[in-house]
Amino acid sequence: MERAKIRLFVDHDLGAGQSVPMTQPQANYLFNVMRLKVDDRIALFNSRDGEWTARVVDAAKRRGMVVCEAQTLPLQMPPDLWLFFAPIKKARTDFIVEKAAEMGAARVLPVSTEFTNSERIRQDKLQAHAIEAAEQCGGTYVPEVAELAKLGAVLDNWPPDRHLLFCDETLAGAATDLSQLPQGPWAIVIGPEGGFSEPERARLRELGHAISLGPRILRADTAAVAALALWQQALGDWT
Amino acid sequence: MERAKIRLFVDHDLGAGQSVPMTQPQANYLFNVMRLKVDDRIALFNSRDGEWTARVVDAAKRRGMVVCEAQTLPLQMPPDLWLFFAPIKKARTDFIVEKAAEMGAARVLPVSTEFTNSERIRQDKLQAHAIEAAEQCGGTYVPEVAELAKLGAVLDNWPPDRHLLFCDETLAGAATDLSQLPQGPWAIVIGPEGGFSEPERARLRELGHAISLGPRILRADTAAVAALALWQQALGDWT
Repeated sequence: MERAKIRLFVDHDLGAGQSVPMTQPQANYLFNVMRLKVDDRIALFNSRDGEWTARVVDAAKRRGMVVCEAQTLPLQMPPDLWLFFAPIKKARTDFIVEKAAEMGAARVLPVSTEFTNSERIRQDKLQAHAIEAAEQCGGTYVPEVAELAKLGAVLDNWPPDRHLLFCDETLAGAATDLSQLPQGPWAIVIGPEGGFSEPERARLRELGHAISLGPRILRADTAAVAALALWQQALGDWT
Repeated sequence: MERAKIRLFVDHDLGAGQSVPMTQPQANYLFNVMRLKVDDRIALFNSRDGEWTARVVDAAKRRGMVVCEAQTLPLQMPPDLWLFFAPIKKARTDFIVEKAAEMGAARVLPVSTEFTNSERIRQDKLQAHAIEAAEQCGGTYVPEVAELAKLGAVLDNWPPDRHLLFCDETLAGAATDLSQLPQGPWAIVIGPEGGFSEPERARLRELGHAISLGPRILRADTAAVAALALWQQALGDWT
């Protein structure tokens, strides 16, 4: 079956013959903006059941219903990779979340650090960015965006089985060969503008593997994509 | 000598005792926005002479003069890597140019392809983004942003000694191990949203090395950063 061009993430179960109600924003997008009619097809995914083609059976301005027909893609989970980052300016924070979804992180976790300016995030807006990125990139999974936590508390409770990769901008040398690192659950930690404090850096070094991302100092959003690319190629689902 | 926090790119020669006039926007930034005074220090670079500390000797609202004192960094040229990309929405085009400068491309070359929507670019604005990124990332070199060219013409005149790396989103498989590729001058070619046309793809395959960037379809700006990261680690100045 040909894959539909419009892809929507839903929270509903998906399966043959399953009716799925559209939310008001989804109905607005499908039937006002995109002008879909009854019997048009869209694709749905929910992070659990893969991607399904669904047929429009009710198309109103503020509501709608689609019925699942056939699975077009199996569920493809990303690798067990978390991305911790310190929120920066809004556009760049949005960007990091979007890129984490495209690059295949399983969870995205904002953390405040000693040098973080931004003391709050809009978790709901960031989650919406992750959903939109997954809808665009053809994935069948949306990474969960966590609430803001303090880096210190995160490190105090670090899960012992999860490896930590930490991009240390003070190591302006050669990038580490990540293919030498062990397989398993991982987390990448990206610092804020201005970097980590010395105590934070010492703590991270103790817990994890420090890598360099070359001789230039990368912005946090650039560092996130670069580190995700190196990790995915060495240890993730790009190998 | 301690490195100054404010870094400016200038087109002027730099050397001990050299006077360097500030442009009107630079004078506005230094003396109105940042409120620098005579005897304050800034850092200058020009893509040729490394980074120099310079002392303010004249600080007016619309003009200014600084005098070079000492070299604080040698010139560090990026590897001989060109980035070709098809212009997309303005914010994402700006982003690609910024990231190319941070990631260490030597030249950035916008190309129009069969599926490119955007038929014009503001080369001067894009060049300004590259300069700002180099000022921020601590580099001593600003990549040149070329005028928009047609991909067909670029490929017709492809320099025979330059290897071509082409990110083929139809190869949704494992990423290539770039460390197997030859050293030398390289170019990375990133397609537009909607990808390359079949004839373009055939042409690129014939001329270059096609790589995959994993199982999800990356936006052009994401693909640019990811490909630059993999190339820099395997063949560039991150090794």
